Amino acid sequence: MPATIKDVAERAGVSLKTVSRVINHEASVQDGTRARVQKAIEELNYRPDLSARSLRSARNYALGLVYDNPNPYYIIAVQNGALSVCREMGFGLQIHPCDSTAPKLAQELTDLVHRSRLAGLVLAPPMSEDPKLIRHLAKAGVHFVRILSAAEDPDDGYPCVFVDDRDAAYDITEHLIQLGHTRIGFLWGGEEHRSSPERYKGYADALQDYGIAQDKKLIVKGDYSFDDGFRGARKLLALKEPPTAIFGSNDEIAAGVLAAAKSAGMDVPFDLSIAGFEDSPFSKQSWPALTTARQATDEISRHATRLLIAQLQKNGRFEVHNEGFSPELVVRGSTAPPRPRK
Amino acid sequence: MPATIKDVAERAGVSLKTVSRVINHEASVQDGTRARVQKAIEELNYRPDLSARSLRSARNYALGLVYDNPNPYYIIAVQNGALSVCREMGFGLQIHPCDSTAPKLAQELTDLVHRSRLAGLVLAPPMSEDPKLIRHLAKAGVHFVRILSAAEDPDDGYPCVFVDDRDAAYDITEHLIQLGHTRIGFLWGGEEHRSSPERYKGYADALQDYGIAQDKKLIVKGDYSFDDGFRGARKLLALKEPPTAIFGSNDEIAAGVLAAAKSAGMDVPFDLSIAGFEDSPFSKQSWPALTTARQATDEISRHATRLLIAQLQKNGRFEVHNEGFSPELVVRGSTAPPRPRK
Repeated sequence: MPATIKDVAERAGVSLKTVSRVINHEASVQDGTRARVQKAIEELNYRPDLSARSLRSARNYALGLVYDNPNPYYIIAVQNGALSVCREMGFGLQIHPCDSTAPKLAQELTDLVHRSRLAGLVLAPPMSEDPKLIRHLAKAGVHFVRILSAAEDPDDGYPCVFVDDRDAAYDITEHLIQLGHTRIGFLWGGEEHRSSPERYKGYADALQDYGIAQDKKLIVKGDYSFDDGFRGARKLLALKEPPTAIFGSNDEIAAGVLAAAKSAGMDVPFDLSIAGFEDSPFSKQSWPALTTARQATDEISRHATRLLIAQLQKNGRFEVHNEGFSPELVVRGSTAPPRPRK
Repeated sequence: MPATIKDVAERAGVSLKTVSRVINHEASVQDGTRARVQKAIEELNYRPDLSARSLRSARNYALGLVYDNPNPYYIIAVQNGALSVCREMGFGLQIHPCDSTAPKLAQELTDLVHRSRLAGLVLAPPMSEDPKLIRHLAKAGVHFVRILSAAEDPDDGYPCVFVDDRDAAYDITEHLIQLGHTRIGFLWGGEEHRSSPERYKGYADALQDYGIAQDKKLIVKGDYSFDDGFRGARKLLALKEPPTAIFGSNDEIAAGVLAAAKSAGMDVPFDLSIAGFEDSPFSKQSWPALTTARQATDEISRHATRLLIAQLQKNGRFEVHNEGFSPELVVRGSTAPPRPRK
């Protein structure tokens, strides 16, 4: 017979409530007590997943993760963050990449939840940022949490983790300006992601604050992909007055810019400074490594998943609130002062 | 009321069996008939997922995907391949990255299947290649399919899709030899993956066939990761007689070699030829793009998933057999003849 939470409580000499607190990683347990409970859990080979039984619907053991993103590193980080919390809490994780522009997406997600009996959904951008979709899911009784791009808590009654892309994009642009760049190209990410206009706004605000006039020719629309970075950079580098620095809205775009610069025989960062966004593993591995903004995608996803589970366990077992994250500027070898004008 | 398979058959004027064949993508349906059925499915908004109800256990709607791999591109390709079949057939997909060396892995996977009520598991390497684990799962009544590295069907009674890594590694090494290289470094992948000794064997066989003596100093052990590629290359390039070409056992390793070469100021491919394995998106995006072996990971995963579902639906709805895949040599800019000796 597998050990129960009662066995653990007896062996550790504590109350059921304390064991439950340890299992749920609540802060209110003293270190010594926590260690005793963890030892008992180990010795009895107790599986905390059984604690999921206390959920209102004992039949829903899995969460769904919904995303639409061309960047494998981002996807893996979101998955791993969600999974780590699912495992602690005894949930499985179903993945559901989808097409954010599909006309029947709301129905697709509602069907998914019912058919696979999911306890709730973690919604990544851009689905998380579509107010119509959100209202539809809420109306259909689907539990969810959102990961979205915003400078502050939208405070709209639906749970979320929000990432201040604008602020970080400002920092990157400021870094380039302080190096001496005034002709700074900007490559947009996918417009259906709210992070795209937010990052653009950070770029535009920094230029304005430093009194640099925007040149529309230096701004190119595209998607969050390597190919769009490559194409966008080729376009910018072919200008009569090309930029001396290019800020790609994510690291994939920046990687495309890097490839375009190298294929044009340019020496990065001396002929062209390049910055990305996200701090994906690629940004450390490219040559030169990319200046970027460190976005703690796995931690963001972990927090979102905790928030969803807290919602499902509304019996007050533990409390988690909306939280904001601010990506941090990371300066690496791909940015340098521009060559002096001849 | 949602449309049934019977409604579709009536509207299309065909038998139930024909509709089922179309849903299951069997080849035996004529194109005109197939189009008629698909039109009826669309018009009636029929959801083929309901067909999953005919499974013996109507409660298990999800499959599990089990992997342990440091390469995001590989993981995403395996996930997407499995997902595409799951969607056709009305299954959800739970992901389960794990530690292949965990002592209680068999128990972990059996627990996973029971707790999440999974209909079966798609096992990626190296779990798929561990005979003890496989026997344990079979004994526990877990349905599974394996993706593994082998030159031929192991024909051991358990379903699998096998990939001939050895043959493809031979082709890559032969390509380097034919360019004129005789000092060819080899960087191993993780030893718990059977693909690692298989790829090594392809390398060793090609050297032998071309009468080139192996130099143990040119062979470095490591994992399937960028960092191990970087480290391994630094070691090889520091030799008194360094190699003129390096074959990394996957594209991540080769990317690490490329970074090491560039950080040493080398001009690739003229100072050093580099080849990888897998044809991951990165291999096309690096500068220069990598010579590699195209491994159709998504198609391999699709076939494996079909094979698992065929097993679950043993009522003869459709038949799928073990199948072998051979990665194909793709020559790109990272390989060239060695510089003439002075």
